Amino acid sequence: MLNEMGKRARAAFRPMARASTETKNAALRTLAEGVMAEAPAILAANARDVSAGQVGGLSEALIDRLTLNAKRLSGIAADLRALAELPDPVGETFDEGVLPNGLRVRRQRVPLGVLGVIYESRPNVTLDVAGLAIKTGNAAILRGGSETLHSNRALMAVVQRALAQHGLPADAIQFIDSADRALVLELLQLADGVDVIIPRGGAGLHRFCREHSRVPVITGGVGVCHLYVDESADVERALDVIHNAKTQRPSVCNSLDTVLVHRALAGEFLPAVVDHLRPAGVTFRAEPRALAVLPTSLVSQASPAGPDDFDTEWMSLVLGLKVVESMDEAIEHIAAHSTAHSDGILTRDAANARRFVAEVDSAAVFVNASTRFNDGGQLGLGAEAAVSTQRLHVRGPMGLRELTTYKWVVEGDYHVRP
Amino acid sequence: MLNEMGKRARAAFRPMARASTETKNAALRTLAEGVMAEAPAILAANARDVSAGQVGGLSEALIDRLTLNAKRLSGIAADLRALAELPDPVGETFDEGVLPNGLRVRRQRVPLGVLGVIYESRPNVTLDVAGLAIKTGNAAILRGGSETLHSNRALMAVVQRALAQHGLPADAIQFIDSADRALVLELLQLADGVDVIIPRGGAGLHRFCREHSRVPVITGGVGVCHLYVDESADVERALDVIHNAKTQRPSVCNSLDTVLVHRALAGEFLPAVVDHLRPAGVTFRAEPRALAVLPTSLVSQASPAGPDDFDTEWMSLVLGLKVVESMDEAIEHIAAHSTAHSDGILTRDAANARRFVAEVDSAAVFVNASTRFNDGGQLGLGAEAAVSTQRLHVRGPMGLRELTTYKWVVEGDYHVRP
Repeated sequence: MLNEMGKRARAAFRPMARASTETKNAALRTLAEGVMAEAPAILAANARDVSAGQVGGLSEALIDRLTLNAKRLSGIAADLRALAELPDPVGETFDEGVLPNGLRVRRQRVPLGVLGVIYESRPNVTLDVAGLAIKTGNAAILRGGSETLHSNRALMAVVQRALAQHGLPADAIQFIDSADRALVLELLQLADGVDVIIPRGGAGLHRFCREHSRVPVITGGVGVCHLYVDESADVERALDVIHNAKTQRPSVCNSLDTVLVHRALAGEFLPAVVDHLRPAGVTFRAEPRALAVLPTSLVSQASPAGPDDFDTEWMSLVLGLKVVESMDEAIEHIAAHSTAHSDGILTRDAANARRFVAEVDSAAVFVNASTRFNDGGQLGLGAEAAVSTQRLHVRGPMGLRELTTYKWVVEGDYHVRP
Repeated sequence: MLNEMGKRARAAFRPMARASTETKNAALRTLAEGVMAEAPAILAANARDVSAGQVGGLSEALIDRLTLNAKRLSGIAADLRALAELPDPVGETFDEGVLPNGLRVRRQRVPLGVLGVIYESRPNVTLDVAGLAIKTGNAAILRGGSETLHSNRALMAVVQRALAQHGLPADAIQFIDSADRALVLELLQLADGVDVIIPRGGAGLHRFCREHSRVPVITGGVGVCHLYVDESADVERALDVIHNAKTQRPSVCNSLDTVLVHRALAGEFLPAVVDHLRPAGVTFRAEPRALAVLPTSLVSQASPAGPDDFDTEWMSLVLGLKVVESMDEAIEHIAAHSTAHSDGILTRDAANARRFVAEVDSAAVFVNASTRFNDGGQLGLGAEAAVSTQRLHVRGPMGLRELTTYKWVVEGDYHVRP
């Protein structure tokens, strides 16, 4: 089955890659209209998934991620219309030049190819990825969670009608319409049919893809994130950044996991952190030096950090606290424990900021800003397909341009190589 | 064993990534001097490999690839000195800007990480890759062919002395000093120790890496390359380009495999191709329409093309010939048979050139130029580690910049995400 889908995707990719910006944008707008026009059918299908999920005992959080409603559909339609307004990266040229022998050389952006996207419960990802693929002229094979099968079927019908209405191949966006988990493995082995696998989900999914894929994988999404509070930091404002990074949306990958505080500031700063964040429901895991500076009135708020705590992505209102002797120790701690997703420094010392930026090699390195900004929308990319923590092709947010590759175009006057 | 090497490479990567351009260039110059100073020891070690190869029955071509001599060592030393003169991509910034909220955002080039390079008989690759890795601040684990073990040991001693002399970690460039093939598989599984696998060798090696690696692989190097001769082509000059693309160095991946000729030109052009190339020893595989236009005096030079001939990378003085009804048929043939390495058009028609460039999606697309230009040196990159035919991260020549990735640097004034 997947072999056939791969062949059809490969064939559909060529007309997608050549489609004009106007056609792609028109298809996106039609898709947005379709989502609104078909809302009753989509919501009815989604209700079947939701009640099956409730019967099956899905957690409240998962049911919430699974649920669509009129407001969420409007948001999705608005995102699709916004995508149509963004510049098209396909066709852009760069590194243009004339070589000494007269050859005219340039690189030209082309779509990446056939994307294999594997994701979990949220049905909005289906339209999100379909929209990004259409905009960038890629084809895609989607594999959503089994608990969203009815919702995804209804959404895919709208996608395929939008493609067809603008003369684009319906096979450009295909959906693995089956709950059979063996098909995930089959997708990962589809070396001729798929150019890149983009998993969107937890650490287990990313590891599984990396271990079993014969296709390049963009892994990511797992963030053990740090903020180092330098001795020169503005204490009041640092508290606000830490509060934001930890509590604004604790369940996502760019939320803060560990605060490292310079020894000189620890006695003043750590009690203030506990005081400032506990009203939001934050609990703390502190290493001995951090525990030691908390006054008796606050020490009960923090538990001693266990051996794995500084390697844990909390995804919840837990915050690790550690005192460091120096910025060197902070940088060493980050090198040892960070997943290279989002790490930052809070400081008033420009030299320390420079050295931190030079020596911390994470996908995004922050100076005096919340880790929550590591996001395609927040960094000005307009949209994102995933956040990469691997080093090849893309680091951090994968926006439109990161969904392209390039070809070399070399024009001569019947040049031969000497 | 490889686990330990991976850990040491990972540790050595950090000081490499931070090393100044001056230090890296000084190490390259010392390495060049060392190659010349140690020439007697290197050549003695190489002689052991060569005589073992002769006893073991290696082909003359392989013995030639394996052999070092004073002239080749001088060439290698000159390449290392040239590498020292090239600009350092590490630290370059791009996409710099200020967002509406005042965040200052940029991307900054950083080394790719730990490279795992697997290659076959040529010992010069050892210094080639060592030099590229030093220049770009990467670490590397090298796995050369078992038939070059003594040569590689002697070369690696020079590399490690050059690193140490400039305060760089000797573990930055490590060599798997064993003929055990199981270690290749172990290297491919070293997900924590290696960031990218770069195979340099034949199609079998690339396939093996793709199938077994848990680490991203830059596959490439296999080229079934085409030139399409449009009806408007300048016949005389087209012959020279085809002659160059086929015969200048037939054993490499960017040499020409198939000529596609527009029907209107075939009767004139194909006999001229056979006439022009057979003195160089070229033999031909022609499909029926191409055979039909050869005069009796030439038809014996060509055999009928077999079913797989148009999917064969010849690596030798064999050339496929095919007549097409139109440029569309040429583009379809290329889409079906090309490995997306190097394909071109010979034409005087600017509109046809534009359409060919738009529709042929190969790593390098040529207009009126030999496919032999798909090479880092020829395209102005100064050096290359490999030629990629996959779509992720790099297409075509992998030069210095392609051996880097980037990190996002985000500087704010204690910004929080609303």
